[in-house]
Amino acid sequence: MIKGASTIYYGGDYSPDQFDLETIKKDIVSFREAGINMVTLPVFSWTKLEPEEGVYDFGWLDQAMDLFLEAGLKVCMATPTAAQPAWLSHKYPEVLPVDQQGRKRTHGMRVFYCVNSAKYRERAAAIAEAMAKRYCKYPNLAMWHVSNEYGTYCYCDTCRRKFHGWLQRKYQIIENLNEKWNNTFWNKTYTDFAEITVPSETNDEFRFNPTLALEYMRFMTDCTIECFENEARAIRRYCPDMTIQTNISGHIENLDQFKMVKHMDIVSWDNYPKPSSEPGLVAMKHDLMRSLKQGASFMMQEQSPNQQNWQPTSKLKRPGEVRMLSYQALSRGADACLFFQLRQSVSGQEMYHGAVISHADRTDTRTFREVAQLGQELQKIGGLFLDGRTAAKSAIIFDWDSWWALEKASLNCLPYKKMDYLKKVYKFYKVFHKHNIPVDFVAKDADFSQYSLLIAPYLYIVDETVAERLKSFTASGKTLVGTVFTGVCDEQCKAVYGAYPGLLRDVFGLWSEEMDALYEKETNDICFDGDIRFTCSFLCELYHNTTAETLASYGKDFYAGMPVISRNRYGEGTAYYIGTDPEFACLEHLLTEIFEETGIGPYYAAAEGVEITCRQNQTASILFVLNWNKEEAWIDLLEDRYENAVTEEIMTGHVTLKPYDAIVLKKTDER
Amino acid sequence: MIKGASTIYYGGDYSPDQFDLETIKKDIVSFREAGINMVTLPVFSWTKLEPEEGVYDFGWLDQAMDLFLEAGLKVCMATPTAAQPAWLSHKYPEVLPVDQQGRKRTHGMRVFYCVNSAKYRERAAAIAEAMAKRYCKYPNLAMWHVSNEYGTYCYCDTCRRKFHGWLQRKYQIIENLNEKWNNTFWNKTYTDFAEITVPSETNDEFRFNPTLALEYMRFMTDCTIECFENEARAIRRYCPDMTIQTNISGHIENLDQFKMVKHMDIVSWDNYPKPSSEPGLVAMKHDLMRSLKQGASFMMQEQSPNQQNWQPTSKLKRPGEVRMLSYQALSRGADACLFFQLRQSVSGQEMYHGAVISHADRTDTRTFREVAQLGQELQKIGGLFLDGRTAAKSAIIFDWDSWWALEKASLNCLPYKKMDYLKKVYKFYKVFHKHNIPVDFVAKDADFSQYSLLIAPYLYIVDETVAERLKSFTASGKTLVGTVFTGVCDEQCKAVYGAYPGLLRDVFGLWSEEMDALYEKETNDICFDGDIRFTCSFLCELYHNTTAETLASYGKDFYAGMPVISRNRYGEGTAYYIGTDPEFACLEHLLTEIFEETGIGPYYAAAEGVEITCRQNQTASILFVLNWNKEEAWIDLLEDRYENAVTEEIMTGHVTLKPYDAIVLKKTDER
Amino acid sequence: MIKGASTIYYGGDYSPDQFDLETIKKDIVSFREAGINMVTLPVFSWTKLEPEEGVYDFGWLDQAMDLFLEAGLKVCMATPTAAQPAWLSHKYPEVLPVDQQGRKRTHGMRVFYCVNSAKYRERAAAIAEAMAKRYCKYPNLAMWHVSNEYGTYCYCDTCRRKFHGWLQRKYQIIENLNEKWNNTFWNKTYTDFAEITVPSETNDEFRFNPTLALEYMRFMTDCTIECFENEARAIRRYCPDMTIQTNISGHIENLDQFKMVKHMDIVSWDNYPKPSSEPGLVAMKHDLMRSLKQGASFMMQEQSPNQQNWQPTSKLKRPGEVRMLSYQALSRGADACLFFQLRQSVSGQEMYHGAVISHADRTDTRTFREVAQLGQELQKIGGLFLDGRTAAKSAIIFDWDSWWALEKASLNCLPYKKMDYLKKVYKFYKVFHKHNIPVDFVAKDADFSQYSLLIAPYLYIVDETVAERLKSFTASGKTLVGTVFTGVCDEQCKAVYGAYPGLLRDVFGLWSEEMDALYEKETNDICFDGDIRFTCSFLCELYHNTTAETLASYGKDFYAGMPVISRNRYGEGTAYYIGTDPEFACLEHLLTEIFEETGIGPYYAAAEGVEITCRQNQTASILFVLNWNKEEAWIDLLEDRYENAVTEEIMTGHVTLKPYDAIVLKKTDER
Repeated sequence: MIKGASTIYYGGDYSPDQFDLETIKKDIVSFREAGINMVTLPVFSWTKLEPEEGVYDFGWLDQAMDLFLEAGLKVCMATPTAAQPAWLSHKYPEVLPVDQQGRKRTHGMRVFYCVNSAKYRERAAAIAEAMAKRYCKYPNLAMWHVSNEYGTYCYCDTCRRKFHGWLQRKYQIIENLNEKWNNTFWNKTYTDFAEITVPSETNDEFRFNPTLALEYMRFMTDCTIECFENEARAIRRYCPDMTIQTNISGHIENLDQFKMVKHMDIVSWDNYPKPSSEPGLVAMKHDLMRSLKQGASFMMQEQSPNQQNWQPTSKLKRPGEVRMLSYQALSRGADACLFFQLRQSVSGQEMYHGAVISHADRTDTRTFREVAQLGQELQKIGGLFLDGRTAAKSAIIFDWDSWWALEKASLNCLPYKKMDYLKKVYKFYKVFHKHNIPVDFVAKDADFSQYSLLIAPYLYIVDETVAERLKSFTASGKTLVGTVFTGVCDEQCKAVYGAYPGLLRDVFGLWSEEMDALYEKETNDICFDGDIRFTCSFLCELYHNTTAETLASYGKDFYAGMPVISRNRYGEGTAYYIGTDPEFACLEHLLTEIFEETGIGPYYAAAEGVEITCRQNQTASILFVLNWNKEEAWIDLLEDRYENAVTEEIMTGHVTLKPYDAIVLKKTDER
Repeated sequence: MIKGASTIYYGGDYSPDQFDLETIKKDIVSFREAGINMVTLPVFSWTKLEPEEGVYDFGWLDQAMDLFLEAGLKVCMATPTAAQPAWLSHKYPEVLPVDQQGRKRTHGMRVFYCVNSAKYRERAAAIAEAMAKRYCKYPNLAMWHVSNEYGTYCYCDTCRRKFHGWLQRKYQIIENLNEKWNNTFWNKTYTDFAEITVPSETNDEFRFNPTLALEYMRFMTDCTIECFENEARAIRRYCPDMTIQTNISGHIENLDQFKMVKHMDIVSWDNYPKPSSEPGLVAMKHDLMRSLKQGASFMMQEQSPNQQNWQPTSKLKRPGEVRMLSYQALSRGADACLFFQLRQSVSGQEMYHGAVISHADRTDTRTFREVAQLGQELQKIGGLFLDGRTAAKSAIIFDWDSWWALEKASLNCLPYKKMDYLKKVYKFYKVFHKHNIPVDFVAKDADFSQYSLLIAPYLYIVDETVAERLKSFTASGKTLVGTVFTGVCDEQCKAVYGAYPGLLRDVFGLWSEEMDALYEKETNDICFDGDIRFTCSFLCELYHNTTAETLASYGKDFYAGMPVISRNRYGEGTAYYIGTDPEFACLEHLLTEIFEETGIGPYYAAAEGVEITCRQNQTASILFVLNWNKEEAWIDLLEDRYENAVTEEIMTGHVTLKPYDAIVLKKTDER
Repeated sequence: MIKGASTIYYGGDYSPDQFDLETIKKDIVSFREAGINMVTLPVFSWTKLEPEEGVYDFGWLDQAMDLFLEAGLKVCMATPTAAQPAWLSHKYPEVLPVDQQGRKRTHGMRVFYCVNSAKYRERAAAIAEAMAKRYCKYPNLAMWHVSNEYGTYCYCDTCRRKFHGWLQRKYQIIENLNEKWNNTFWNKTYTDFAEITVPSETNDEFRFNPTLALEYMRFMTDCTIECFENEARAIRRYCPDMTIQTNISGHIENLDQFKMVKHMDIVSWDNYPKPSSEPGLVAMKHDLMRSLKQGASFMMQEQSPNQQNWQPTSKLKRPGEVRMLSYQALSRGADACLFFQLRQSVSGQEMYHGAVISHADRTDTRTFREVAQLGQELQKIGGLFLDGRTAAKSAIIFDWDSWWALEKASLNCLPYKKMDYLKKVYKFYKVFHKHNIPVDFVAKDADFSQYSLLIAPYLYIVDETVAERLKSFTASGKTLVGTVFTGVCDEQCKAVYGAYPGLLRDVFGLWSEEMDALYEKETNDICFDGDIRFTCSFLCELYHNTTAETLASYGKDFYAGMPVISRNRYGEGTAYYIGTDPEFACLEHLLTEIFEETGIGPYYAAAEGVEITCRQNQTASILFVLNWNKEEAWIDLLEDRYENAVTEEIMTGHVTLKPYDAIVLKKTDER
């Protein structure tokens, strides 16, 4: 939750240093007209603020702060450390990273510093502290935003040496590391930590050494946390009670976000869906963000009010699309709905990225009108669902370790060469989304007790603790679903002798003999009793049930008839195993059966393409209903009574939604 | 014009240092048999001429010169500086460039020197001077050819420092540069010129910083001009009145050729069309070359007499193809028709490139026969059209700045990721070509007064001066055609607040709100009144007419009905605006209507696939008629009378051309 | 032949340093159960054996050797030098190579040392000697295996300087090199050997300088031979009479294997066919291996008992596939049938590569059962065909020089951009394979006298000696077949003036005028008399017969009617020339006609998809019959009588094979 907020924050990034005073004043008028109540600044203004090492110039920012204060606009104050000054790179080349190709970078781009550079950290902490000291007392200061979209990896000597220390702290002695990493393979044995290289293109370890590559990704997450803490610590000195966050890039794969957010006061992320993304996929990312802090509300720190310029084709957002995407974010836990950007830059990489006020510099535009309409709605209803949470009986285990190991750290080792972990997880999520059943994501070391159904798709990295917890979860009468590649490796990405799914063999009641990989368009068949047939692809595991019973078997190839989906009674509970990647319809068939068994159901019945979510806070229970269809669609509210929060109309029973429309309903007992 | 020439130069590159004396003598006999009157040498013979720093060996070249003199062959003398000696790279590694990947190059290839290397320039000027001094008095010396196919970019520290100086001369103080570049975006502010990096892969500025990348390309053009001048100066000392040129590579995109040719006495270029290239595309490049010096005749310095080896598939030139391509060049302004190469090399990268005398080392070959036939024709008619010019009432603005900005300098910033500026311009040119209407290309800072119709396709970079000139051109009663992305940016690649087309809003009578990008195969419809429908693709601009009237509107998507093609009466003239990339048929429809309005017509009516051009010099008006069809085709010469320059036959009225044949007609009054 | 062997060696790679004692003992029991009689070790254990420079620890290996000895298992002892210790790279960075991109490598991967590093060679020889000294007396030591899959190229300064020496030894003076390389082209003239660069991406010579690139590949073969000899010499000191070999990687293209194997006692190679590879292609590689030492038996040092992990899709080997592939190897000359690997590693790049004992760690698996079945068969019949040879009247010239020159060294020079030399050769081989006609491969400098038919497909590099030998081979009454690109270049990759096929013009009776390249899917037609028509692609040579007669001519394009396949009577013999790349059916048509003419026939008639080979040693003549079909198929043994070596059944006349089955038949006179 955002400390001190009494309504949804609505607004976005603004760069006063790029515009003259006239323009800023004119813009403030427009912002107010659009219901905007927050601006984020000065994300990329380090040199303007510190034109020379240790010499600060806050004049222009003071002026902007005063104007915003006067206008009643809150400020999300960002440290400008995502793009260091050219003078810093020039004076201290150590702040520049070495990339995975092994090349020392020169100054340019953004987020291009070495996360372990002492000089970078020194200057970053210094400016964060100077800003905190200066602005902590401003009454319109609402929160802090540290840097921007962390995620750059560095492979320089500083990092290499620090990695040695990190490994030494983890393994104490080199013999221990050698053993845990099984370094006798290909003579990878080290005699000293100092011999360890970083996994780059100059040694091909990034694709040929899964263990090393995986450890390096963990290390990079830890270093990035240090960078965040380095600034947050400085800020806390002056603003001890203020919300501090950093915006997670849509490219969430580089850092273990479960670890990252432990250091933030609220989860904050940038939502840039492809124009072609299914609503479900966007919903999944919001749910993941909501889940990072166990259901706490989060911030949508950025979305584009129109086109995104960095995609191969910059489609305009269609009429109403910004409103739909905004309500979707709010429905799934967002307490802030912010845009990048309020005014379009006239140059640089993002000069064609959408903005509330574009190069046309007018407010009689479609984009401005849509933003303003939403702003006015939020002025009315934005306090209703603040801090609201969404209850779920099901959870999907989401695991950066497994993602990395299956998609990145062992690129050239696995039975396939391409995998998209997010897409594979999404196939499961999509069943929940389509049926409007709330579902959380959980880390594998989380508390599972509140759930009755747990999906562990491709949960590749499973140590003994995790295995034990999954077993006792199931034994206690609950339901677990696993897949091919669930439970294969230990923390060091080593398989364990004794057949997959390794430590989970008992709970699933089977052992795996072989794993066939299918060509890109190749499929096998999945046959349930009574001739229900689906296809599967990607991988086909050839396994033998010990205590499990076969639910479905392969229909083709030399392993036709072998089990592909099984069910095992374990203790008081049940474990399902899916030895392949089934088509969506098959997953839907299986999961809806499991939903029935476990008594998990949707909010309400509704037409396909209608998305329903509920947020409950201490004062209200709010139902968000989004109709993604280009036609009218229905939801059946049964006997329940709701008030449309915008129109104040009372709604119950069979309700019709307009095409591509979102409604926000407040549960009410009044009749 | 080539000083001193009395006929078309016909011949090409020859490397006497690769062949023994016998062979050279035998070749000379063959050359004369083929009507060859010029050889170009010694393009790649630096080390042979200067085997040690400052020590020259001209003996073998003297001998060759004497043989050519004796045989009556003119010489186009090339400085050999496109490939420096291995000893020079070895002794002075500074002459080797750093590539865009940030890698220091080692010796190899050709055109691989740093254009700013002082040592390279010193040695290049020295050998140019030594050659000029020695050969200036040779009576068969016809002209100078400096180096070869300039265009390599370097990213070394020497270049970086020189770039700082270049920028400082342009902007004086860093604050000025920061402001003009809008460097507050992404904290690109510099505090000193010394902090500026060159746009390479080590900083990703080549694709993320349009302004920097664009300036660097301008800088590289200027540095390359210095390289040319460095040698030309040395030559002029001894040959003050001789034509000096350098051959422009078919890859014209790296250097601003309008700027380059200001330093040359004649435009000279290498014509290597793909086997699949349309005749119109080749014609366009000739017309562009003719236009670089405002219509002056040019040289086709190279074409292959047969296959080009460096294409993915080396197709043989078909029977008659060399003759057709040669007459096409001559028809569009070439005063020299030269081949690379006269004799095929037995090794190296180009060992399979076509030659007049191939590895077979015989003259009873198809290639030799075709070359000889053409040579004999040119001996008869080659003096007729020398210096001839082609009059045109229409012009297309061609702009390297816009090309670079739209296709290269901002690769990752624009609404699309792929653009082919040449192809987009060609779509306009093709209408002229198909209808046999002469058209020039002009630089945006050229004098437009001789034209009544000006096309400004994708003229992205438009400063105030250019805008003013386009406006007064139109206001004076003429016709201007603009497109999406015309007029968007200033010289620094910055958009200007206040809606596209920026400074040209008034002349086009509209303002642009948004720009939608279409997926690769996606189209929208263009609807004219009366239901004429075409498709468009690439980009769809959503604009509002202020004073303009809608000629056609979009047929689909949420902006169906919005204008896509408009016409604005401005002063005494008319401006057309095309807010998308229409299919060719649509452009043809629109432009033929404009032709009619503006009274612009073809030379003569002719069958499709017949290309007509006219060159006029002080003594004659020569009509070239090329039938690209594999069948007979006609041209209607009306009452006009011509003499076929080769056969001396008189032609008038409806004339039939043989398949794939070219005829050269001299206007005559005799009846 | 393998010295001291009395049966086929069966077993494979095993890494005792990766497993505990319990596991090793358990595995040995399994190995014996599976008929395994040989283990290869310790291929990648350098650091375990030499944890510190000059300090050895052989304890664990002694223990393993003792266990294997006790169990009656032979050992193929490998030097562990394919992956140097991390401490070695750390202490002496000179051992690390520079790659073709010009990047200094850091420690990682395997086979990543500089082949010319003095320090690497010193330490490699030292450990080889220490091992030889220690293990030479072990009674279960069966042979030596040096390093692993040689083939890395290095481009460092050490290599560059050594290359200069290598060139100086070859050409003595730089003027000689300049002349032989025709260095006047593109000013490649050197004034000193020291100026020569290595062909890398930093100079583009790897793709633009065929001669340099070709010489570097020859140089790298020579350096690699030195590496092998460096260790072999040390071993021979203690094991003077023992077989020493190194395993040739399936990627045979980097090293000239004809040269390599001169230094080995037996050819040894790793057979990793793609799941989709035709049996004929695999057969061809075996035949090539058999041919490297003129028909001597070889070792299949590695094959996977199941999936290969490094392919884009790791397919399981199908039931019976390992048995079929094993018998195929044995039938074509293998005297050892070894697996990589006996036990699967739990980590690293190959953790998902197949193994006799997989991660499941059980023997009740399909893989183990199949391996054990084959092991039992080999225990019975493995002594029968040892050292057996296969007689052939036909040979195909296989030439690394031509391969390199046509596919790698001149990537950007040739009329096409893609060529697969192996596939082109395979098209010829496939005719032999399909018809069960034995064929050898020969080097161009081999003795041809035993053959009556010689195919020289794409034999691009032909010097005078080779040309003379091909001419006298033909003149003596035999048959030669050449193709487009046969005979074009001399040893330095230079074409020779005077028309292709160069020095072979007389023997083929024709001269070539031009060579057309076809687009990827483009074809021309080949027309034989009587209207038999085939297609051809890739290249179409336009040649003129002098003494040859036309067998077939082109059917299309402007060269329709010109000869494409010709026959020339030369001396007592006949030479066929194919000026294009014909489709397989055309080659089959032509070659079967030639077979008839030259009296070359199959072993026996059989159904399609039945592969027949014969191995004869001093005591027996063994026929291998493999039915690759998924259905039954037949072979007609005529009156000949054979005993099925496994079942002891007598077979004669029309014999039916089960689907996907192999039988081994011993010729017998008993009736």
